Amino acid sequence: LLNNIRIVLLHTTHPGNIGATARAMKNMGLERLYLVKPKHFPNSEAEARASGATDILENAVVSDTLGDAIADCQLIIGTSARERSLPLPLLTPRDCSSVISREADSAQIAILFGEERTGLTNEQIDYCHYQVMIPANDAYQSLNLAAAVQIIAYELRIAAISPPANQNASPASATASEMEAFYSHLQQVLIEKKFIDPEQPKRLMPKLRRLFTRARPEPEEVNILRGVISALIK
Amino acid sequence: LLNNIRIVLLHTTHPGNIGATARAMKNMGLERLYLVKPKHFPNSEAEARASGATDILENAVVSDTLGDAIADCQLIIGTSARERSLPLPLLTPRDCSSVISREADSAQIAILFGEERTGLTNEQIDYCHYQVMIPANDAYQSLNLAAAVQIIAYELRIAAISPPANQNASPASATASEMEAFYSHLQQVLIEKKFIDPEQPKRLMPKLRRLFTRARPEPEEVNILRGVISALIK
Repeated sequence: LLNNIRIVLLHTTHPGNIGATARAMKNMGLERLYLVKPKHFPNSEAEARASGATDILENAVVSDTLGDAIADCQLIIGTSARERSLPLPLLTPRDCSSVISREADSAQIAILFGEERTGLTNEQIDYCHYQVMIPANDAYQSLNLAAAVQIIAYELRIAAISPPANQNASPASATASEMEAFYSHLQQVLIEKKFIDPEQPKRLMPKLRRLFTRARPEPEEVNILRGVISALIK
Repeated sequence: LLNNIRIVLLHTTHPGNIGATARAMKNMGLERLYLVKPKHFPNSEAEARASGATDILENAVVSDTLGDAIADCQLIIGTSARERSLPLPLLTPRDCSSVISREADSAQIAILFGEERTGLTNEQIDYCHYQVMIPANDAYQSLNLAAAVQIIAYELRIAAISPPANQNASPASATASEMEAFYSHLQQVLIEKKFIDPEQPKRLMPKLRRLFTRARPEPEEVNILRGVISALIK
């Protein structure tokens, strides 16, 4: 179960947090670390804080964009302490593990953690099917990045070592890159048809993304949608 | 519920771990930090890692012995990744929270975390009613100290915000200092009666402690036991 799950850290500022994340992951049996534009990496402080988990750092995949880091993923979950303006389905860490354990045998799954001070941006959240929120003290919400990873990874491990009795296989969903190709196609025709003003796009594409994200289309369904678009603009 | 719970760090080597523990505690709504013989405290690295939780550090109670730190406690739980030679009742972090939530309205509760590299000693474990073990990767067990506190504190918070339906009040137990007075009394008479050789005490007292610890005597029962001892040696 844990092999298909990747932890994606976005624009991480403090390399110590990358090292502590690697340690937290390895302790809980997670191995796949993805780093999108880390400020300092590789880095000696990251290695020191990783303790015996330097192999996680050595195998970390570094990329320039979130899209690259999750291109082959079918389920994307963003961690955030704030409710968002366009809210996603909200999960507790425990519910998050249940959702993941229903899919992790067959799907590629990414859990996203934003920059330390600002968290995930709206554009990063737009890629996500769910938001997971760690229940914290209202008076002091801001968890350390590696501490947040530790809690999520702990719940994943608990789910992995005690799988729920009732597992219904869900159909394979389209990958993030298939969805991005679809969104590009859709946006392009909406601009051509002057439904979107590229100078003032407002939040139309994010709202459409949210709708389709919630639907979790299968690859075949994405092809059908693209066929519909092509047919409509003829 | 969380107000009666203290986190006790024993002989902590790295002050950064004390700061990170304070932050983990405050995030989850725990406030009472006890430090037994910390190597460096107060300390600037502890403050840096505490981030917005420096109030937890300022209010931390520092003591020379574990006995002082838990003198008024009625339920004592030790965290350890190893099974011990004289095993205690073993809890998962989740079960630990259930046990605590049944008592935390009325009892003082301590959760002990040993020195970073060695963990709790047998003598420290002898004070404990339960051992809590975080389920970790067999190939890489050693959690960072603050990461371990984070997981335990997270489970306590989940229990605090969603209390179990069925809570049976348990009778008040004797405090650690009442029990220590009883053990001193018992040990003294066993030495006088040459049942224990002070030069070679073996593990007799630890075994007796474990027996009585499991029983969780009420204060009145401790008085009765001491009356029995006094009566027997007359």
